[in-house]
Amino acid sequence: MIHWKPLLDALEAGDEQTVRSLSDAMHPADAAAFFGSLNDRDRHRIAGFMSAQALDLVATFLEPSEAADLFHGVPLHRLGDTLNGLPDDVLVDILQELEPELREDYFLLLSDEKRALAAKLLSFPEESAGGRMTTAMATVREDMTIRQAIEELGAKKEETEVLSRIYVVDDEGHILGKVRLRDLAFNSRSMLVRDIMDDERLAINAHADQEEAVAMMRKYNLIALPVVSDHGRLLGVITHDDAMDIQAEESTEDIERMSAIGGTRDDEGYLRSSVAAHLQRRFFWILGLAFIGILSGIVLYNFEGILASQFLLAVFVPMVVATGGNTGAQAATMVIRAMSLDEFTPSAYLKVLWKEFRIGLFMGALVGVIVASAAYVFIHFFAIPRGIITISGGLGIGRFAMTIGIALASQVTVSASVGASLPILARVAKLDPAVVASPAITTIVDIIGMLIYFGLAKQILHL
Amino acid sequence: MIHWKPLLDALEAGDEQTVRSLSDAMHPADAAAFFGSLNDRDRHRIAGFMSAQALDLVATFLEPSEAADLFHGVPLHRLGDTLNGLPDDVLVDILQELEPELREDYFLLLSDEKRALAAKLLSFPEESAGGRMTTAMATVREDMTIRQAIEELGAKKEETEVLSRIYVVDDEGHILGKVRLRDLAFNSRSMLVRDIMDDERLAINAHADQEEAVAMMRKYNLIALPVVSDHGRLLGVITHDDAMDIQAEESTEDIERMSAIGGTRDDEGYLRSSVAAHLQRRFFWILGLAFIGILSGIVLYNFEGILASQFLLAVFVPMVVATGGNTGAQAATMVIRAMSLDEFTPSAYLKVLWKEFRIGLFMGALVGVIVASAAYVFIHFFAIPRGIITISGGLGIGRFAMTIGIALASQVTVSASVGASLPILARVAKLDPAVVASPAITTIVDIIGMLIYFGLAKQILHL
Repeated sequence: MIHWKPLLDALEAGDEQTVRSLSDAMHPADAAAFFGSLNDRDRHRIAGFMSAQALDLVATFLEPSEAADLFHGVPLHRLGDTLNGLPDDVLVDILQELEPELREDYFLLLSDEKRALAAKLLSFPEESAGGRMTTAMATVREDMTIRQAIEELGAKKEETEVLSRIYVVDDEGHILGKVRLRDLAFNSRSMLVRDIMDDERLAINAHADQEEAVAMMRKYNLIALPVVSDHGRLLGVITHDDAMDIQAEESTEDIERMSAIGGTRDDEGYLRSSVAAHLQRRFFWILGLAFIGILSGIVLYNFEGILASQFLLAVFVPMVVATGGNTGAQAATMVIRAMSLDEFTPSAYLKVLWKEFRIGLFMGALVGVIVASAAYVFIHFFAIPRGIITISGGLGIGRFAMTIGIALASQVTVSASVGASLPILARVAKLDPAVVASPAITTIVDIIGMLIYFGLAKQILHL
Repeated sequence: MIHWKPLLDALEAGDEQTVRSLSDAMHPADAAAFFGSLNDRDRHRIAGFMSAQALDLVATFLEPSEAADLFHGVPLHRLGDTLNGLPDDVLVDILQELEPELREDYFLLLSDEKRALAAKLLSFPEESAGGRMTTAMATVREDMTIRQAIEELGAKKEETEVLSRIYVVDDEGHILGKVRLRDLAFNSRSMLVRDIMDDERLAINAHADQEEAVAMMRKYNLIALPVVSDHGRLLGVITHDDAMDIQAEESTEDIERMSAIGGTRDDEGYLRSSVAAHLQRRFFWILGLAFIGILSGIVLYNFEGILASQFLLAVFVPMVVATGGNTGAQAATMVIRAMSLDEFTPSAYLKVLWKEFRIGLFMGALVGVIVASAAYVFIHFFAIPRGIITISGGLGIGRFAMTIGIALASQVTVSASVGASLPILARVAKLDPAVVASPAITTIVDIIGMLIYFGLAKQILHL
């Protein structure tokens, strides 16, 4: 546990010197977490006291919007140093958060070199490989000796994020292979880079989706993935820590889509997002699904005659409908997650459907038999003798239980197939499977369930 | 795209030499993916032909159960070399997959050193930091010169997984700090390790949950996280690639739990898991939720009188109920995901509830007003003139629409709060929030929704 009290006391007393030395001495990740717990005024005051180097470090551990907020507290004459000292991917992420006008002010504070770099990086979409890369990678030439390579890298080491993988490039910047820092450190300094490099040229196009980049890094266990232009020139790398962030973001997106939450999660996180921001992501789905829900109601309304003649049927409507929804959600989740983890290709879609059909069939048969038997026992031995349920007309309890069982079994079988089909159809139509699946499944399965249930009741119970 | 045809042809022709040279030359990650597409017989035959070194590499890119399966194809006299050549965390993961008897056979093939190490690693639970660490980390002493450190590391570099972070330990193995390989490579070789090391001692206890380890690696952007004993001795490290795997597993677990899927995902993935294995994870939830669903039915059954006197009410039952379910699921998802990402601590629970209450209130008011207005317009101007809906008795359409609107607004407000409360209660009770949330929310919200709706109908419509 870290004790913040001395820092807060010094801040209260306006002791700039002490605030600076204490905040500069913190681990930047801890400082970043601590800043989140402060009010705006205190956070900005501390930022105003800190050195540019310490601020840069903290900014790399903050979400871009939080870092942008922090910089509001930095006096203008120190902001230039701070901005120019940021790793370029962090700088670009922060610039992306700013209002156009403020972004231009910040641009003016950048060195010529940084400005050109930032402009180039800003040209890639935020969620592309290019939008997530850093250009601070290490490169060498194949005809260098290890001694020359170490000298060149040593001069640049402060600007380089990942040094454990060093890319060997030709005159045009195409990747010829890579060397590991350990290969440089543990070999004779007179050897040539060419002699110790491997010819691995794994790379991703700058316009590819960030999700593809992460899938590649997971497949090949990479610490860093080179990002190349359409002409195959090395532009930058995606580092392991960004890959973890991207992976977490993509999982969050899947989970949220499946629960009918739209838009993208704010960098600020749950608590700091305003009620209005939350409403914006949730309201339209809830409203839309409410209107769709009226469809199920209209279907139910059309069975008034059957329900009127045997109201006991109503007891099992919510169960049949909900069981379909649950089965469909299970199937959809399995398929969507397997797609996200790149577990199967389009060629396997039919296999997936065949598997879910069998799972639905077996599960439906089991659930149908068990629930029907339980319903029979409950109604016959418990509910009727105690007067909890009254049966009108000459309804046979056996036939009634059979209706429930067959309806459930059919509903589960159909729902598993619907749940598996919809994400696949969405993928084929180039839509996000997670967005399509959840609301569509519920609606379709609700209506199918009532049609099956009342249809069977009509047939079997002669209503 | 890689062309497998020559390899398959050589396999068909039984040309061991060619199979070995071709399979040894593949990128092991590509070989791992390729093996997944083969039938058992071909996969085992290729494994039998491959060199021990190539097999070891491929095994590191396979799920442990897949690697265990692959080894069935390796002749016994070559299996010892293969097992002894594996990174220790991969070896242990594979041993964990084996039947006890086979595991003993494999143990006998290990060198004394490997056997002792494996026994030690197997003593940690599979999902703990100790269960996921590798012991192949690099350590140096603070009184070494850089020259000595490089010599010592150079001798061990082939056994070391992560060399970019080198831990400085004392006689008892406590971490004093770390040096980066770049610090060794770019400084004068006569300097002491002590002079260039930093004093970062971030580490995690071997018995801590793997999820905590990943949270720490994300917070501090670590390539590797040291794992220590209860006495603070360095036992191993969790590497960035394992961290990505753990993160993906934990997200999968959250998503599956929220869709009422039990147990743990098989290493084999979706398609290779048998129908029986899928049933085992899904059947009991579906059955249990079906029985719980009967509760909603019984509640509905008790409002027979109200429905009989005004069946039009039935049209809006599914919508009110489902809207509650959707709102509750949204709220629960937001809270569960924020918990998984360590976004708030227990001290913020009341703030979360207050936020969800406000979101529910605003969203409910909006949805209630819009749906009630739409219902009024639809019934008055469309459904009644066209005979789609008939209204019995002296029911006023205005009052009817008001009933729907107030019911929806209350249902949404309550459901948002229920959806946020349940994961928090689960966390307080030390249960998995994702397991508790989904089924409990649906059940509670279904019943509350009907009570609100019919209760209001009774009051407002005097039924």
